[in-house]
Amino acid sequence: MERVQHTPSEPQAIRQRIRRGEIAGHTSGLAPGCVQGNVVILPQALAADFLRFCQLNPKPCPLLAVSAPGDPALPTLGADIDMRSDVPRYRVFRNGEMVEEPTDIAHLWREDLVSFILGCSYSFEWALLEDGLPLHHMSAGRNVPMYRTSIRTEPAGPFHGPLVVSMRSFRPADAIRAVQITSRFPGVHGAPVHIGLPELIGIRALAQPDWGDSVEVPADELPVFWACGVTPQAVIAEARPEFCITHAPGSMLITDLKNSQLSIL
Amino acid sequence: MERVQHTPSEPQAIRQRIRRGEIAGHTSGLAPGCVQGNVVILPQALAADFLRFCQLNPKPCPLLAVSAPGDPALPTLGADIDMRSDVPRYRVFRNGEMVEEPTDIAHLWREDLVSFILGCSYSFEWALLEDGLPLHHMSAGRNVPMYRTSIRTEPAGPFHGPLVVSMRSFRPADAIRAVQITSRFPGVHGAPVHIGLPELIGIRALAQPDWGDSVEVPADELPVFWACGVTPQAVIAEARPEFCITHAPGSMLITDLKNSQLSIL
Repeated sequence: MERVQHTPSEPQAIRQRIRRGEIAGHTSGLAPGCVQGNVVILPQALAADFLRFCQLNPKPCPLLAVSAPGDPALPTLGADIDMRSDVPRYRVFRNGEMVEEPTDIAHLWREDLVSFILGCSYSFEWALLEDGLPLHHMSAGRNVPMYRTSIRTEPAGPFHGPLVVSMRSFRPADAIRAVQITSRFPGVHGAPVHIGLPELIGIRALAQPDWGDSVEVPADELPVFWACGVTPQAVIAEARPEFCITHAPGSMLITDLKNSQLSIL
Repeated sequence: MERVQHTPSEPQAIRQRIRRGEIAGHTSGLAPGCVQGNVVILPQALAADFLRFCQLNPKPCPLLAVSAPGDPALPTLGADIDMRSDVPRYRVFRNGEMVEEPTDIAHLWREDLVSFILGCSYSFEWALLEDGLPLHHMSAGRNVPMYRTSIRTEPAGPFHGPLVVSMRSFRPADAIRAVQITSRFPGVHGAPVHIGLPELIGIRALAQPDWGDSVEVPADELPVFWACGVTPQAVIAEARPEFCITHAPGSMLITDLKNSQLSIL
């Protein structure tokens, strides 16, 4: 699949380093301005249900691309992408148990595997930062806090479970601006699903997130909640498919798409 | 100015009835779907400052049209509009004191008068209702509650004062939707200026509005605040111009524009 590129673009050059095993960790901050994607790889037998789950739940599962069965290419996200090698670190699950965290999955590849790439909050955080809005978890060097909610996803086949949300707090006028900005990016979770009043969606204590780190909400700010890409991961963990590969947390697929290209307005 | 219209449109027909004195009260509910405007008529000597005030403060003062001095026509809002007769009821102020509430101002017309028509919340409320969002003050048959805030407007000449806001409460997901919907209508106040936490903008008690009626905010809802057309009225009252005419509260200019035409998206 590999072609000689005399002047690879930045995302291509980074994927080449990932492919050679030179980058095996987090992708945060790599290829600035480029879309990074959450990765789910499932056997074809489960792919139709998972595709339907994404279609029913576009806010937590914004689908950027789906591969043909057995084809490791995703040409709409990058001409050279090879899903067997281009994610820095993978997680391999068998019957719901994580069995391996390899940097390459060529040895596991099967002719029935379908790759799903889902939009990720990095893209809308880029848009918020471009507009000058502060992100407290970032300035504190922490992961964004994430919470299991009482909002149910729409089930499809074996896939069902609660909506997981990420929280960022803003002063009220900035919260309104954040709604406007992220509304332009439906492909990467889009507008928030909730604002203020966390107890209404089953969140008892903001200081005790279910994933990520705790980040304080100042008294003059409102917590704003976005549907989160951890939702499909939690749903898949619950469904315990016989075989499944995902990216390792924070170790995403870097694509050629620009975040700005995802803006619908 | 009057032309024979064999089949006047609904807003034209209503303006003709207003012109004949058959309608002299509120315009709420008349010519559904058509834009209604707040009216300010000032001598030319003050018009440039007021125009600049509107330009500096587009959220409380969204300018739909300005007339040429002495010209009672506003052709961009309706071919037949005559500002001397087409508002059901006017208020006439001299040196800041209201002296008259006539249904016609032909006897007061001067060659130096400039008419300003400002967008009004009826238009964005129409858009919210079209999208199925509930408006509590409407279902309760009350006026929307309005509050003087600690947010200052940008001054221009004699015009200065606090921003006045109107409040409507929504469940959190509907509040997010309300931000999206009203963002499409910058010509009629646009997106909210504040959400939640009223004390941050100098509002001590939601139950005690400065204008309009008190409307309860349910425990599972957030108060959402929009810049309000009462702002320029309060600012003009404060500036005490030697002569000024406005519409009487609720008795607006009905235009030929459709609310949907004001959507920028």
